[in-house]
Amino acid sequence: MGVVINLEGAERKTRAAFDRLGVLVREDLKAVDRIILDNLQSRASLIPQLANHLIASGGKRLRPMLTLASAQLCGYKGMRHVGLAASVEFIHTATLLHDDVVDASNLRRGEVSANALWGNESSVLVGDFLFARAFRLMVTDGSLKVLAILSDAAGTIAEGEVLQLSTSNDPETSETSYLEVVQAKTAALFAAACEVGAVLAGRPQIEEEALRSYGLNLGTAFQLVDDVLDYSSHEQTLGKAIGDDFREGKITLPVVLAFRRGDEEERGFWCRTVEDLNQQEGDLERAIDIMMSHNALSDSIERARHYGSMARDALGIFPGGPEKHALIGLIDFCIDRAY
Amino acid sequence: MGVVINLEGAERKTRAAFDRLGVLVREDLKAVDRIILDNLQSRASLIPQLANHLIASGGKRLRPMLTLASAQLCGYKGMRHVGLAASVEFIHTATLLHDDVVDASNLRRGEVSANALWGNESSVLVGDFLFARAFRLMVTDGSLKVLAILSDAAGTIAEGEVLQLSTSNDPETSETSYLEVVQAKTAALFAAACEVGAVLAGRPQIEEEALRSYGLNLGTAFQLVDDVLDYSSHEQTLGKAIGDDFREGKITLPVVLAFRRGDEEERGFWCRTVEDLNQQEGDLERAIDIMMSHNALSDSIERARHYGSMARDALGIFPGGPEKHALIGLIDFCIDRAY
Repeated sequence: MGVVINLEGAERKTRAAFDRLGVLVREDLKAVDRIILDNLQSRASLIPQLANHLIASGGKRLRPMLTLASAQLCGYKGMRHVGLAASVEFIHTATLLHDDVVDASNLRRGEVSANALWGNESSVLVGDFLFARAFRLMVTDGSLKVLAILSDAAGTIAEGEVLQLSTSNDPETSETSYLEVVQAKTAALFAAACEVGAVLAGRPQIEEEALRSYGLNLGTAFQLVDDVLDYSSHEQTLGKAIGDDFREGKITLPVVLAFRRGDEEERGFWCRTVEDLNQQEGDLERAIDIMMSHNALSDSIERARHYGSMARDALGIFPGGPEKHALIGLIDFCIDRAY
Repeated sequence: MGVVINLEGAERKTRAAFDRLGVLVREDLKAVDRIILDNLQSRASLIPQLANHLIASGGKRLRPMLTLASAQLCGYKGMRHVGLAASVEFIHTATLLHDDVVDASNLRRGEVSANALWGNESSVLVGDFLFARAFRLMVTDGSLKVLAILSDAAGTIAEGEVLQLSTSNDPETSETSYLEVVQAKTAALFAAACEVGAVLAGRPQIEEEALRSYGLNLGTAFQLVDDVLDYSSHEQTLGKAIGDDFREGKITLPVVLAFRRGDEEERGFWCRTVEDLNQQEGDLERAIDIMMSHNALSDSIERARHYGSMARDALGIFPGGPEKHALIGLIDFCIDRAY
């Protein structure tokens, strides 16, 4: 199984690529964390409690890192990227809080999720508070162009989540509809986080667009892999309960592909389990077996590679250097998480 | 009961005052409605459906009217107040949607609430979409000062709602804590809606502050009366189920006053009903009886009158005219709803 061995090698290499990015933005990221903590202060003590639970529980800080690295790639020398990276993380955290209410999920990054601990009400309201803080940080920054980019992203995310509701539990969802949801609910913020870096540096529009395209395609690949991991990862490594999507009847690419490639009997299985949510012992294992028999998981990763390639090419116009190297390494890191 | 007769006369007069305000801003309000409809367009069809349910179900449009009338009072001649008034209404509608998730309320303005019809998920996400649209309207307007005022208000509202969670079901809540919640969750948006009018017109800071103070005090009075109405109105006139607050154990001023003025046995009643939520047939009637015996409802309205007076005096620096006359009439309208 030469493929597996190569990928194990690749995993080490790409983990190193992620760390390389971390080294590049380390000091800026510390400043981001300070701004995040400062902006969580509130006379309502539940706010820092709940937000710290989520923010301190150690997400990868992938999205703010994108803003920091993009700004560096564009040669930006000031400190505005730090506040805007914090703003991006606040938007992301707010959507996570609201997402958990929507999904009624009990685990998030391997921790008990905020809504399970504090209730839906708190998650909704603290999410709203974080959105407002994100906007305050942008207003303090003072760029209307940045405000437009990030507020549009926030709207697109909400739109994507609503679209996702309308496809939920429908195994006949097309790959196109699925992609539309992914690009809105996940990739839009990656795109905005990267674009902001070029805007800060005052770079020409072609570079803004290149970074936006990098982010959009990276985010799409990231979400596709995330969806695969829900059927294939070990809970302890991903920090997400395997089978969550299946149990909720969430329609993701592995289901879309397995449904379309399956026979009558298999489609009946998907209708019973993800449409009617009539699930029995052993159904998750059977779902994975059906997916494997149609290469639905490996082909979902192939689709992710396609978006990864587009992300790589989008950076083609930038000269080589440590930032570009790290941003390209990040693409492989996102995809190779699947192994 | 001469008082009642006077108030009936007063009610007709103040209803006329509300209508007078309506006439002043009628054309602008139509333009606001058009902007609202335009900005509800989305490829996710649930968004206009759900938002229309709430926005078209005919709220009073009180908050956008405040922005329009304040701008007129300050002699503003452009059209920017229209987009910003729409933004204010979007923020308000988003908080209503999120509030209904929190309260698990089934009636809103006499209609079945959105979350009861479409589910919590939809209410959370469409609320997020409306927040994002509100910010897009502000960004399009392009004033960082206005953006700061309205985004701070959005943060304060969320903070107020979280504070309210922490006082909920605690009949020992102090009047001060209760007021802090009211000023954050309700009055902050009234204040911001009014202040924006002065900012648009480029008026001196003293006028910005005057309108902000008018809005803050008007909003406080408005909420106090709203809380009284939950124990005294007829469902068909208010469009809100009487006793909702009581059933949820929400702590409002009538409860705060009745608890503090009551004897041991009555405090036991409040602890059982609003703290432990152990309620039986006839408890709501008993709650109202206790409140009446301590003048908790009428004194809550007296408190509202106090804030109404401060709102009136805040407008003192403006010369007389139809806008000032209508804004002062609005104070009486808000308070006399209670009769």
